[in-house]
Amino acid sequence: MTTVADRYAPPDSPASVGWTEARTVRLASAESPLRLESGGSIGPVDVEYETYGELSARRDNAVLVAHALSGDAHAAGWDRNADATGRLWRARRPGWWDEMIGPGKPIDTRRFFVVCANVLGSCYGTTGPASLDPASGRPYGLRFPMITVGDWVQLQARLVDRLGIGRLHAVVGGSLGGQQALEWALAFPERVARCVVLAAAPRLSSQGVAFNAVGRYAIMNDPHFAGGDYYGAAPPRTGLAAARMLAHITYLSEEGMSSKFGRRLRKEGSAPDFGFGAEFEVESYLNHQGRGFVERFDANSYLYITRAMDYYDAAVRWGDGDLSRGCARIRSSVLVASFSSDWLYTPGHCKDFALAMCRAGRTVTYVEAPSRYGHDAFLVEKDRVGDLLRHFLAGPLGEVRP
Amino acid sequence: MTTVADRYAPPDSPASVGWTEARTVRLASAESPLRLESGGSIGPVDVEYETYGELSARRDNAVLVAHALSGDAHAAGWDRNADATGRLWRARRPGWWDEMIGPGKPIDTRRFFVVCANVLGSCYGTTGPASLDPASGRPYGLRFPMITVGDWVQLQARLVDRLGIGRLHAVVGGSLGGQQALEWALAFPERVARCVVLAAAPRLSSQGVAFNAVGRYAIMNDPHFAGGDYYGAAPPRTGLAAARMLAHITYLSEEGMSSKFGRRLRKEGSAPDFGFGAEFEVESYLNHQGRGFVERFDANSYLYITRAMDYYDAAVRWGDGDLSRGCARIRSSVLVASFSSDWLYTPGHCKDFALAMCRAGRTVTYVEAPSRYGHDAFLVEKDRVGDLLRHFLAGPLGEVRP
Repeated sequence: MTTVADRYAPPDSPASVGWTEARTVRLASAESPLRLESGGSIGPVDVEYETYGELSARRDNAVLVAHALSGDAHAAGWDRNADATGRLWRARRPGWWDEMIGPGKPIDTRRFFVVCANVLGSCYGTTGPASLDPASGRPYGLRFPMITVGDWVQLQARLVDRLGIGRLHAVVGGSLGGQQALEWALAFPERVARCVVLAAAPRLSSQGVAFNAVGRYAIMNDPHFAGGDYYGAAPPRTGLAAARMLAHITYLSEEGMSSKFGRRLRKEGSAPDFGFGAEFEVESYLNHQGRGFVERFDANSYLYITRAMDYYDAAVRWGDGDLSRGCARIRSSVLVASFSSDWLYTPGHCKDFALAMCRAGRTVTYVEAPSRYGHDAFLVEKDRVGDLLRHFLAGPLGEVRP
Repeated sequence: MTTVADRYAPPDSPASVGWTEARTVRLASAESPLRLESGGSIGPVDVEYETYGELSARRDNAVLVAHALSGDAHAAGWDRNADATGRLWRARRPGWWDEMIGPGKPIDTRRFFVVCANVLGSCYGTTGPASLDPASGRPYGLRFPMITVGDWVQLQARLVDRLGIGRLHAVVGGSLGGQQALEWALAFPERVARCVVLAAAPRLSSQGVAFNAVGRYAIMNDPHFAGGDYYGAAPPRTGLAAARMLAHITYLSEEGMSSKFGRRLRKEGSAPDFGFGAEFEVESYLNHQGRGFVERFDANSYLYITRAMDYYDAAVRWGDGDLSRGCARIRSSVLVASFSSDWLYTPGHCKDFALAMCRAGRTVTYVEAPSRYGHDAFLVEKDRVGDLLRHFLAGPLGEVRP
């Protein structure tokens, strides 16, 4: 049997960044709010972030890691305050990309200073819909302003400023994190030497927008949703669980699900129950995913973050609809990696991005990795992703490799 | 602008079967109930069906058409009683496969006697969860027994018996209807000369089971569901709408959605609203699909029929897990047609079925039709499907073509 300790380096292992403690920094105030792409503004804004490794004297070894939809700032190591903060799942496993970040790991903390910040609108320490609205003293709920990938990157740039870092050795992310990495290369061309976009395209497909819409429909029509003002009462658990179950299917692949669950019944070797309970293993797995998620995620944050995912369109934002024109701004060396069975951000869409980079005469490496793990491959295919990262992050600090 | 009359033959057109009237026949009684695959039984069972064309004196020209999940017995023509029965949508358009069935059409009613029956458990005239349970005098709700594709076919065989038909010239169906066609060829090898399986495989994939599970989760957790006893009160509309919206995405393809909706906003040429309303065209379309469906479908029927879809596995049912062994029973000539962008019953899975037929030494024709319409292609690609049907149904009546 595999235990957590077999799979992950424990806090006292030389391969782990060890115990971690998140920090919080105020990056916008009521007097000097953050202006948002939607036209509104917000302040105060507090951002929770973690760092691993040491910033070099020349401040040229920083790697910013951007998290995906349900991620947080705790990318590596073991959260010392998991119990105290009620984030109990963090006591059971290390940060979400622990296999990539640490001493000797692909994002090697002996060489790099790694920064990961929780995005605006999330529910893991950075200001979000559950935060108190200074205007009313009550949680924002749906009065929280709409936030975008562009806003996240602007806010991350403030954090990087605050840390005294001018230029990043690299920005790295998968999925919605990959879109943040791309947005960094577009919004701050001179501040990013390397940009790694894993399992992400410059925009979500029509089908992806549709799936997000159904998830939000389920949440917003849960009677406990109460127009977003459910704080202090029962949250819209079944709506959020339905949204997560649905989304979870899109993170896997048909091939992967067939291989992992097939059509196996939970009661091995027996006849079906002919009922509506979780009869197939895959049903039980999905229920488990839904139940686990509602324990750790805020439904309003889910609404805002999926909406940011819908809206992001690098071509519209930076090229007036022409992706190549947008890409012409980029000065970073870009790595785009797609996964063969990813149908959320398909290899075809990722490749179109790489081709736009080529047309714009920019430096891009495109890899389509074979994988049966679908969109989740960027988290699951640790050897392959690790190799890609290790090689792409090599080379002189801060400079684009030749 | 295209009008209904442009698109469909009106009732008085020579290409239409004209005005139709459904009939209802009692095929099982309380004293002599229908025994079910799940082990239970049910009686009475009334079946609503329609017929088009004339049964020949030799009773050898019958074609049975099996409908899919949300279909009904009204496959062609214009329902004379649409208003009287409250099935108002039938007043606006002809039967669901009107383009295939009629005088001179691919399933030519000048030659064939076409039969289409509503399945057990549905909400369109055949006994289902909304019917009165004789044990209590109240609607069955979730006390309705679990029903299967096998049960549907047994019941259809009773109807065919009642109509005095021994052997069918063909059984034809798409999606869940295609599984019924296959089940006919397996359960009654001597009674089916030709079997047409469109956009269907001998079993649903793990991913398909997962999508169905999420849809049912949404319905059963809608507070109006009330354990299935919502008749006479508000039905679980939002749960059913969510299930339908989700399922609808699986009936289209990424390619088709990109081509039809892309990422277009509803308000042409303007900036986004940055809100949670239906901002993208695809969201508005999905909402429309969800709203329309809850007006015409019963949530309990949705639960039962999707569960039948989950359970069906021709290999387990007829070959002890070995599909070729099951196929060896078949005496029909089988046409299997898949559609390139169908990801619910993929070309790969349809082809596996055709290969199993080959391994069993049975007669099979396999066609993978190029289409961007996904699973819906069997309803949308009328020219291609029409050509396939026309040719496959040709040849001496009742006999398998050489």
